[in-house]
Amino acid sequence: MQTTIRIIGIDPGLRRTGWGIIETLGNSLRFVASGTVTSDGDMDLASRLCQLHDGLAEVVHSYQPHEAAVEQTFVNKDATATLKLGQARGIAMLVPARAGLRVAEYAPNAVKKAVIGVGHGEKQQIHMMLKVLMPKAEFKGNDAADALAIAICHAHNRLSVTSRLAALMG
Amino acid sequence: MQTTIRIIGIDPGLRRTGWGIIETLGNSLRFVASGTVTSDGDMDLASRLCQLHDGLAEVVHSYQPHEAAVEQTFVNKDATATLKLGQARGIAMLVPARAGLRVAEYAPNAVKKAVIGVGHGEKQQIHMMLKVLMPKAEFKGNDAADALAIAICHAHNRLSVTSRLAALMG
Repeated sequence: MQTTIRIIGIDPGLRRTGWGIIETLGNSLRFVASGTVTSDGDMDLASRLCQLHDGLAEVVHSYQPHEAAVEQTFVNKDATATLKLGQARGIAMLVPARAGLRVAEYAPNAVKKAVIGVGHGEKQQIHMMLKVLMPKAEFKGNDAADALAIAICHAHNRLSVTSRLAALMG
Repeated sequence: MQTTIRIIGIDPGLRRTGWGIIETLGNSLRFVASGTVTSDGDMDLASRLCQLHDGLAEVVHSYQPHEAAVEQTFVNKDATATLKLGQARGIAMLVPARAGLRVAEYAPNAVKKAVIGVGHGEKQQIHMMLKVLMPKAEFKGNDAADALAIAICHAHNRLSVTSRLAALMG
């Protein structure tokens, strides 16, 4: 018997953290909700991290997902930006983990591949494919769209991991 | 009337996060406690961040500090290491902030200057000066010692900020 699994995808960022909730049953995908948690750039870092924490915790509490997926942050050459992203990402992983969810990580090219078939592509292509894969999907802005893409990536990959485990365990 | 202020200093790291609690009354310093919260390198990242969170939350709950100080992470050339540190640092700032504490940040050279008088020096020098400044100080390893040094740095700098504010407000 197949079970509906509810997944939260998170695209972490200090200023804006996108989130998207989908449900997967076998090969079918269903859009549940999406949005963006923001932090106030005029406040100190610790307060901003609290804002991200509280916003994400509210989403997890409201939608009660079973599993979580977070994008593996692109490590660019700007160390200060990497550090900021790291801090936001720490919160993005902590919140679902504290709620008892397993948190998977996916590289950006794996996310793109799951949604548009190749490991590179424009934001616009992701938006279009989200609508193809989940016609009822609603999202405002790139962060929420990316978060939905991350959730879809996990919906695809959790199956392959599960079937591999099942094969291993005979 | 002067009030005793209890400060927690935190030296964040994914594998080991040092913490140190001191009390300051005017110019005097008193050692309260120090230690290290560790995460299990064999576990996944989200679980490790939970371990750091729970360990630090227990310390804050047990010792009830009034203010917190965290080292401004050294941004080195290794982006992967910076990202890891950023994630641990996000947790180190979140925990005291969620407990309602103000969280100050200090650069490593400011911390060294507060403890050994100059902005550079050996770990051994910090250990020695901690014993001079707080004869009863106990610490195992560099992480706890660094955390105590960060707390001392805040004890010095919070006064100057407070007196500057007092002067401004006439």
